[in-house]
Amino acid sequence: QGNRDLVLRYELTFKLAKAFAQNKNISLPFKRYEIGKVFRDGPVKKARLREFTQCDIDTIGIKSAYADAEFMAITFDVFSKLGIEVFVKVNNRKLLFGIFKESGVEKEKFVSVALSLDKLDKIGKEGVKKELEQKIEKEQMEKIFSIIEESEKLNNNEEKLEYFKKVLNNEIAKEGIKELEEFFYYVKIFQNKEKWEIALSPFLARGLGYYTGLIWEVYTKNFSSALAAGGRWDNLIQKYLDSKIEYPATGMSFGLDAIFAILPKEQEESKIVYIIPLQKEQVKKAIEVASILRKRNIFCDIAFDKKITKALEYANKKKIKYCIIIGKEEEKKGVVKLKNMQDGSERFLEISQLENSFV
Amino acid sequence: QGNRDLVLRYELTFKLAKAFAQNKNISLPFKRYEIGKVFRDGPVKKARLREFTQCDIDTIGIKSAYADAEFMAITFDVFSKLGIEVFVKVNNRKLLFGIFKESGVEKEKFVSVALSLDKLDKIGKEGVKKELEQKIEKEQMEKIFSIIEESEKLNNNEEKLEYFKKVLNNEIAKEGIKELEEFFYYVKIFQNKEKWEIALSPFLARGLGYYTGLIWEVYTKNFSSALAAGGRWDNLIQKYLDSKIEYPATGMSFGLDAIFAILPKEQEESKIVYIIPLQKEQVKKAIEVASILRKRNIFCDIAFDKKITKALEYANKKKIKYCIIIGKEEEKKGVVKLKNMQDGSERFLEISQLENSFV
Repeated sequence: QGNRDLVLRYELTFKLAKAFAQNKNISLPFKRYEIGKVFRDGPVKKARLREFTQCDIDTIGIKSAYADAEFMAITFDVFSKLGIEVFVKVNNRKLLFGIFKESGVEKEKFVSVALSLDKLDKIGKEGVKKELEQKIEKEQMEKIFSIIEESEKLNNNEEKLEYFKKVLNNEIAKEGIKELEEFFYYVKIFQNKEKWEIALSPFLARGLGYYTGLIWEVYTKNFSSALAAGGRWDNLIQKYLDSKIEYPATGMSFGLDAIFAILPKEQEESKIVYIIPLQKEQVKKAIEVASILRKRNIFCDIAFDKKITKALEYANKKKIKYCIIIGKEEEKKGVVKLKNMQDGSERFLEISQLENSFV
Repeated sequence: QGNRDLVLRYELTFKLAKAFAQNKNISLPFKRYEIGKVFRDGPVKKARLREFTQCDIDTIGIKSAYADAEFMAITFDVFSKLGIEVFVKVNNRKLLFGIFKESGVEKEKFVSVALSLDKLDKIGKEGVKKELEQKIEKEQMEKIFSIIEESEKLNNNEEKLEYFKKVLNNEIAKEGIKELEEFFYYVKIFQNKEKWEIALSPFLARGLGYYTGLIWEVYTKNFSSALAAGGRWDNLIQKYLDSKIEYPATGMSFGLDAIFAILPKEQEESKIVYIIPLQKEQVKKAIEVASILRKRNIFCDIAFDKKITKALEYANKKKIKYCIIIGKEEEKKGVVKLKNMQDGSERFLEISQLENSFV
């Protein structure tokens, strides 16, 4: 997971930086999304490439946490449309680095320590501590854990931020706290009356070296992988271009594999309305009905050249909810028979009534 | 173009055949579409791979021309939604092979002769004739051209089919004509009252060896490349699986590069509504307005942290049609100023009136 995310975001960054190099006078802010297949090394690290679908959104050119908060609006909007209830864990790299600094860790080790902390879910607290002992003093490590664990006893984001303000007395921590406060300020506005669950999670580190400020991961209950994740990456484009201009940026990736894994398993095909002409003579009427439904964006298909028993068998196999049956009698009367496949009920409808019969 | 199409359709076929090999009990008919990035050799035939977006639709398991006619419904529906007026050239490989047979060409040479004919647009009639002289007798070649050119003097598809019925007296030609008649029969039903331009074009050959029956290409006026193309490929899956079961199939590809090349050049960004808060205090109101518009699927963005002059400059550069300006006065009165960027007119609206102000 971490590795995939890494490849994914680096590829993106390369592409974006290239786009900026080629289009110097691109207007800022620049907002973009991309969905497409890319290749990456497989999880078993074999030499072969493996295809997966990448889905990214980025905003470039806005320094304010306003941009980060807008990503929360995107996040909750997208997952609400998918029918998945999610919660977001946020942290800020500067807050995290401030905690490291407060614990006496040297600046050069900040990113490396963060990458170890990021493994908490995978290798557990003891695993992380073991790894950190190779990198920093045991005392420093214990201090980091004690500061963060103390904060986790608090009830809400405001209390946590107040606590950090009290215990952290270095510039980078203060900057991180200020950014988080601005973030929550804009989140409140974007959120308006909606219910968003966003929790400050100071152990959250994200596996990428280039994040500079806010970072977040999106989860749903009873599923361990993050469904989406993102963060602020303010320095990368500037570094890549070796430019004097700043390119503040925020971006996120959706983990389509994880999302598809938890989406309701209902088959696409169960949504179609299956139109069954009893004889070849009714195919014409069936096509007319299909054209009407398709104009209304109602998925449908025709049981072309299928006996009624075979057609109903197919409909049952595909868990299709509605069949429209058209025989000689129906055609003569200018009606169709609508069969509800779930309760077996049937009723006759005029074609004009059909459009509104499918929920 | 030909080469791209070749790679594209072969890759697809491989994938589909594999899908069938792995899912023996897949229900027929099986209808699928796929849009995604794939790699192909570049047009300069360098060793490097080049990415392009592939867009395919296939129906597997329907032998009747009903399935082919349904592709015409898809074609005209898609391009009408894109605002591109198209016409379709159709032919049938069996008709074409029947013409070859009638001209005395040996069966083994049918596909090869068809591939030469397919180059008509690229290398012209003389070029094709030169190429064909290497493959078949000059007399045979002249006969092919005379049969087809005679048909092209006729006014409509019915007359052409009647003509071919008269001059072609072999089984394969008869089969092709029968398939074309069935195709036009179903086209008429699908077409209903819409205006579709579909012309039987006996020179049309398509650059692929595996087409077995109907073939078609989609064009628009004043643009030489096909925007989409397809055909029936009844034998391939069966051959691939070495199966006794028939897998009749029809499929088409959309040429996204060609389609994007002729789509109206209007930039995506010109469609957004640009919300300009005059001071930082109005950002909150701007976000509220944005949330309302976005819920209505109206694209919008906020000129965050931009002076009004810069914001209007940006809007002009992006050819944005509407700006919503919110200042202290507007906020107090609970209204916004809607500025039409094309005629410069401004009017004040209540937020509830906004949703319906953008066409």
